[in-house]
Amino acid sequence: MRLIAFGDSLVAGAGDPDHLGWVGRAVAGRRAITLYNMGVRRETSADIATRWRAEALPRMADDEPMRIVFSFGANDCHPVGGAPRLGQAESLKNAQAMLSAAAVLCPVLLVGPPPMADPGVSARLEGLNENLKMLASRLKVPFIDVFQPLMADGLWRAEAIAWDGAHPGAGGYQRMADLVSAHPAWRSFTLAGEDSST
Amino acid sequence: MRLIAFGDSLVAGAGDPDHLGWVGRAVAGRRAITLYNMGVRRETSADIATRWRAEALPRMADDEPMRIVFSFGANDCHPVGGAPRLGQAESLKNAQAMLSAAAVLCPVLLVGPPPMADPGVSARLEGLNENLKMLASRLKVPFIDVFQPLMADGLWRAEAIAWDGAHPGAGGYQRMADLVSAHPAWRSFTLAGEDSST
Repeated sequence: MRLIAFGDSLVAGAGDPDHLGWVGRAVAGRRAITLYNMGVRRETSADIATRWRAEALPRMADDEPMRIVFSFGANDCHPVGGAPRLGQAESLKNAQAMLSAAAVLCPVLLVGPPPMADPGVSARLEGLNENLKMLASRLKVPFIDVFQPLMADGLWRAEAIAWDGAHPGAGGYQRMADLVSAHPAWRSFTLAGEDSST
Repeated sequence: MRLIAFGDSLVAGAGDPDHLGWVGRAVAGRRAITLYNMGVRRETSADIATRWRAEALPRMADDEPMRIVFSFGANDCHPVGGAPRLGQAESLKNAQAMLSAAAVLCPVLLVGPPPMADPGVSARLEGLNENLKMLASRLKVPFIDVFQPLMADGLWRAEAIAWDGAHPGAGGYQRMADLVSAHPAWRSFTLAGEDSST
């Protein structure tokens, strides 16, 4: 199976000393899965919407099960000059466009954004997370909600504050990966990637 | 620092149960380096030459040191219908085009191809490795040669044979990463990414 992950710096795993991020950690030990991590720092949903298709196509293989996972939101909610970089309506429009178009190519899954260290950004992000969840439900795209568990757990936020204010370390990424990989939606999403040869 | 790695399945780390590949392992523990792994399975130097620029541009940041590393060759030498997918002249033309154009954007480095399990492919690859080394020298691009050490070591090839005939596991990728990360060219190439905050 080939798994393509589109998103922002949190998908890229920025700040992870092990260079895995939550995506790499969520497929740990699963050798039959080839991971293409297409997270890019600073990108909003609008930026990802612009490039995802051109980057997905050379990575698609006719003779292999394909999966596309998306995760974004933090940069949409990040304030520039007092206002968030994108309004919620625009974030949702971008999300709908990407999820609908990608679902034509292969099964897709949406992972909600993790909380941010900044309380104002995080409050906006919590609202976006709820709206993304409703959108995914409407589109019948599986959704994994990590916001509240990571907020309650605290390690993600503590590590982000200790580093650069935005990105956790190995511990925070591992907590998020644990939430994702234990979720039934992730398990069925990646089932065809089970390594049958070992 | 942002490090972008372009190449084939061996750059992507296909078959690595830890989802790091040699690139991820070569920057282990270096948290200030954001790694963008742009390896794509089955791609020849011609395929990489087609996409590298479009994928590099959204990952470039004006205010961060950037580095681009290339590594390819196995798919060029892979036979289809009795002939290799690309002749050596074409591989070298693609390599020259990519290295020259990328060097305008930021410092670049070329890592030679690792050996393949198939003796015929590996013999061709050894020739390409030597030609790439000469090309890099002419272009004043640092080159890291891993072919002979990995051939002599044997673990890379043994793991590849035990898996799918082409891709090693954690051990082989780690050996290649050790060769790369211990090389003076890699150390100076990634020097600006030294983590000064920990």
